[in-house]
Amino acid sequence: MSEQVDWYDIVIVGAGPVGLTLSTCLTRWGYKIKHIDNRAEPTPTGRADGIQPRSLDLLRNMGLKRKIMAHEPAKVYEVAFWDPSAEGIARSGTWASCPKFIDARYPFTTLLHQGLIERIFIEDIQKHGGNIHRPWTITGFCNDGKDKTYPVEVSLKHVERGEIEKVRTKYLFSGEGARSFVREKLGIKISHKDPISHVWGVMDGVVRTDFPDIKMKCTIHSDSGSIMVIPRENNMVRLYIQIASSTDKDWNPRKTATAEEVQRYAEKIMKPYFIDWDHVEWYSVYPIGQGIAEKYTLDERIFLGGDVCHTHSPKAGQGMNTAFLDAVNLAWKIHLVESGFASRSVLSTYESERRKVAANLLDFDAKYAALFSQRQPSAREVGLANKASATDSDVTDHHKDNEFIKAFKDSCEFTSGYGVAYNPNLFNWSPAHRSKSQLFLSYPEHTTLRTGRILIPATVTRVVDANVVHLEQEIPLNGSFRLYIFTGDLAENSKALKDFSDHLTKKSSFYSSFLREDIDQVSYHERHNPHSRFFTLATVIAARRDSIDISSMLPPVLARYRNHVYADDVWDQRVPNSNAAAHAKMGLTEGSGAVIVVRPDAYVGCIVRLSKGTGTALDEYFNAFTSKEVGSHRSQL
Amino acid sequence: MSEQVDWYDIVIVGAGPVGLTLSTCLTRWGYKIKHIDNRAEPTPTGRADGIQPRSLDLLRNMGLKRKIMAHEPAKVYEVAFWDPSAEGIARSGTWASCPKFIDARYPFTTLLHQGLIERIFIEDIQKHGGNIHRPWTITGFCNDGKDKTYPVEVSLKHVERGEIEKVRTKYLFSGEGARSFVREKLGIKISHKDPISHVWGVMDGVVRTDFPDIKMKCTIHSDSGSIMVIPRENNMVRLYIQIASSTDKDWNPRKTATAEEVQRYAEKIMKPYFIDWDHVEWYSVYPIGQGIAEKYTLDERIFLGGDVCHTHSPKAGQGMNTAFLDAVNLAWKIHLVESGFASRSVLSTYESERRKVAANLLDFDAKYAALFSQRQPSAREVGLANKASATDSDVTDHHKDNEFIKAFKDSCEFTSGYGVAYNPNLFNWSPAHRSKSQLFLSYPEHTTLRTGRILIPATVTRVVDANVVHLEQEIPLNGSFRLYIFTGDLAENSKALKDFSDHLTKKSSFYSSFLREDIDQVSYHERHNPHSRFFTLATVIAARRDSIDISSMLPPVLARYRNHVYADDVWDQRVPNSNAAAHAKMGLTEGSGAVIVVRPDAYVGCIVRLSKGTGTALDEYFNAFTSKEVGSHRSQL
Repeated sequence: MSEQVDWYDIVIVGAGPVGLTLSTCLTRWGYKIKHIDNRAEPTPTGRADGIQPRSLDLLRNMGLKRKIMAHEPAKVYEVAFWDPSAEGIARSGTWASCPKFIDARYPFTTLLHQGLIERIFIEDIQKHGGNIHRPWTITGFCNDGKDKTYPVEVSLKHVERGEIEKVRTKYLFSGEGARSFVREKLGIKISHKDPISHVWGVMDGVVRTDFPDIKMKCTIHSDSGSIMVIPRENNMVRLYIQIASSTDKDWNPRKTATAEEVQRYAEKIMKPYFIDWDHVEWYSVYPIGQGIAEKYTLDERIFLGGDVCHTHSPKAGQGMNTAFLDAVNLAWKIHLVESGFASRSVLSTYESERRKVAANLLDFDAKYAALFSQRQPSAREVGLANKASATDSDVTDHHKDNEFIKAFKDSCEFTSGYGVAYNPNLFNWSPAHRSKSQLFLSYPEHTTLRTGRILIPATVTRVVDANVVHLEQEIPLNGSFRLYIFTGDLAENSKALKDFSDHLTKKSSFYSSFLREDIDQVSYHERHNPHSRFFTLATVIAARRDSIDISSMLPPVLARYRNHVYADDVWDQRVPNSNAAAHAKMGLTEGSGAVIVVRPDAYVGCIVRLSKGTGTALDEYFNAFTSKEVGSHRSQL
Repeated sequence: MSEQVDWYDIVIVGAGPVGLTLSTCLTRWGYKIKHIDNRAEPTPTGRADGIQPRSLDLLRNMGLKRKIMAHEPAKVYEVAFWDPSAEGIARSGTWASCPKFIDARYPFTTLLHQGLIERIFIEDIQKHGGNIHRPWTITGFCNDGKDKTYPVEVSLKHVERGEIEKVRTKYLFSGEGARSFVREKLGIKISHKDPISHVWGVMDGVVRTDFPDIKMKCTIHSDSGSIMVIPRENNMVRLYIQIASSTDKDWNPRKTATAEEVQRYAEKIMKPYFIDWDHVEWYSVYPIGQGIAEKYTLDERIFLGGDVCHTHSPKAGQGMNTAFLDAVNLAWKIHLVESGFASRSVLSTYESERRKVAANLLDFDAKYAALFSQRQPSAREVGLANKASATDSDVTDHHKDNEFIKAFKDSCEFTSGYGVAYNPNLFNWSPAHRSKSQLFLSYPEHTTLRTGRILIPATVTRVVDANVVHLEQEIPLNGSFRLYIFTGDLAENSKALKDFSDHLTKKSSFYSSFLREDIDQVSYHERHNPHSRFFTLATVIAARRDSIDISSMLPPVLARYRNHVYADDVWDQRVPNSNAAAHAKMGLTEGSGAVIVVRPDAYVGCIVRLSKGTGTALDEYFNAFTSKEVGSHRSQL
């Protein structure tokens, strides 16, 4: 070849939340990445800023939550509704942004400006040897297949110097935002669920006011118009104002307003309260319509994610959160394929899982808007919904007829991020899955866990050091499947546990088929992947910590994960009468154990009863997507 | 004068925990400090490493806890006891390091090496414009009174260059450690409670072992000797080994042992378990005796603190924690005097309060050693003690006769840091205090709070933003007295609340006597000190958050602290039947309110019933130590 060409595992275009999250995961897992952004600097001010409860779980699982919190973000626990009154406006009610019926570790939305969040990811990427190249843009790409391993050619250009670079890559990812060169070149259309477009004004600044809810998230309707108020770090507040709508008679998508006009507008709306501006940090006007990309990929080599795929109103604060999860969903699937664990077919689930979430988001966006504009919840209704337990039973049994409460609950689940539910597929077991063992446990008959949803949180005691820990956070986002072995009563289930661990160590098992090549050199101190890079095992025992002796009571394969053995002995308010609260929260009893398979992104894959055939059932489950056949019909050691 | 002399508020000698804590407080509060240390660099490895639960509260109150936790320290929740057995050693029991009967936010000891902790303080000092000068040493000092404001002259010398500097200062503080030049020059003697001295070996390193409690704090007695095991960050472990005791026949305080000898010794003690060393990070042998300085100051200008004043065995992990509290205790008293709030007499309470704590520490140290060597607790005894409620009643009623449980409880309180109790004095109200109002509430008749002890923790909802917060942490360590106004039922107590706030705004009141000079220029966003640098007010209302409107329901002086108004509406497991858990935990009812005065260091000063005369009672209380007379007999506005 005449040209010098560099080779990458992936080229990532765009260093907003979706691109940075993908880059962070793949950099940590050792991939060679070309990551470009056409801006000279990260976001300096403004833009997205809301981190949902579920996203905070994710950031903690990535080890980044503490850095977010070090910026002292605002936390929104409640949303207040203000409506027209004789005096101007009056509060008609408040509701929790993440009510008690949702079992969340962090029942609040965290508000911090996108630039600070981006910098946290960038630092992490750099710490692991990666980098973002700025300002570079993409000028062309082609999956020409000229190289089997690196089928995609990408042309890049330095925005200032005009320098051109051609690279070859296994994957190309567009996280370019709503105006995506890659999406356009691929001819992927945006479809519009709701034909109505809006022009929004958004302003960040510091104010002085006697408006009592200035530190809360508020929706204010007045006879002079409507705004949304969101608190921010450093005494800042963000105001969203709808400047025009395509339903207006004089609709003009280029309609704009100056910062001063928006300030005057806000003053009018918020009367009788005063609002004075110390300073405005950021102000922007942008037209936005609801839209969703028809495809997230054409060839499973070139992928789209984040705002490239879905746009919607800023009201529910979903953009960045959806972007985080798009990226993580794709990251581990690419990882499993490229590291030889999974067949290429798993990549199709990126679009099927994430596009459905985006479609739900758009449906929700429309419903949410209607919910806000139609009528306000009564205090009683909000109270009833808040009191409803984590299961649906209270609400469905007693208040089935109240559509509002259902909509309210759905919207809380959605805005908190816990509403994401992936449909059954090769990862998310259902009776339609190709593995048909009778040992799979189904919701709601056998377990409270639902496949395609995240693991229910539980507090347990780590046996080795007696630390009280959050079980669902004990295994970091390391690209491995997480196998939680709930043993129930150890004496009762010791035979089943031994059968299971014997199966794990059989050469043909799903577990032993993917051992580390360097297994003999693994450090004594390795906590998560002593045997395989694709599995981390954790054992949860229904017993008091001081009654557990790991080395004598557990089979060696489980005992090796000595930092992942837990006593289920911490009282939990949600299951106050249980002696083994973690078991009870998962809907398991002390009498019968289970193995919960959790995907690398923390969503539940399947739940299998701990019994003689557990290992075989899991062989079947993993056979649905492993790169090679695993299980007992292979020749045994 | 022929010489160029610099003038300082304080000269601090030594940049260990005590010096750095003092320096951090006073730098933040705007004082001019000369801080020297004779080491060229901060502690590189080893030394102290245990942060008690109470110290973690303090570090959080200083805004430093998150930085500690970012280092992923080890956390000790339980202590295990190992005793001789037929096989070598066997576990005879474990107990919680901070059992449930202690109401602690962080019921564990945090282990991190002293150098990392020092660096966190140093960064904070530098962020606020301060610095540590290294390597400098003190060569002389004299309270010659030649200058009334700066009575002390100090001579300093650069350790390497030999350069000499003379400075004048208001205060000199020695945090030089056990061998203190200042203490020696002052002729202050060390008295020895326990005449027995020991030689200790201490080793930090990374080990491989099948000893199951290597991640726990352990005391191991075997027929081959005894060691103490303490887990550390980064898979490290610390071993303490007693190499010699002055009770030995061949006692030699210079007896030593090599690292290899200690390793062999540990191997023998820990049989039948193996212990292999990956590497040793730090090893030291040092002779230590129990000792306490007879005085902490002679003239209330030159003060001593930390290891200068008290030395003891390392077993209970108290050294650094006592140092933190020595420093904070002195910092706010110097601040109150130098900023014109308090009379100079308050400085005498530094020695009276802190020397008693050190004396208790030494008593405890001896008892603790005896407790460990005499006999081990039975599982039943530990269980009983653990089950005992936060009050003493269960234990004293039912198990009065069991000396062991009492000793166990006392020792847990002590090692957790919650055992610190200052005696009645001008700050810590008792019936002997010069303020005699009938409105003062006493323990245990009227309140669970005890003067001279820290405020009981309580979780409440901040009204302005609905955040669920830790009340005791809401006011940072800012040098101000913290006035918590527990209103009880607002409707019932509105008259008393108005009387109290009317009193606050009277020109002669303790509150209005110390208003800020720049009160008219104070920022709208000032949270803690809008009126006075010496007081922060917080109002706790026995009502649900959504029923509270700050501006219409609270008097303006309290409403101004809009970020410090709380709804007492969060359920608490410790008072499960109360609708106002924070009130209940303080022993207050919803019917009658109270004002709790908390010293700047978080210890309770007094508790006054909310009633017509509350303000007058507080005038009397503060009159015991303010620099000018306050109260109603002064001419009123």
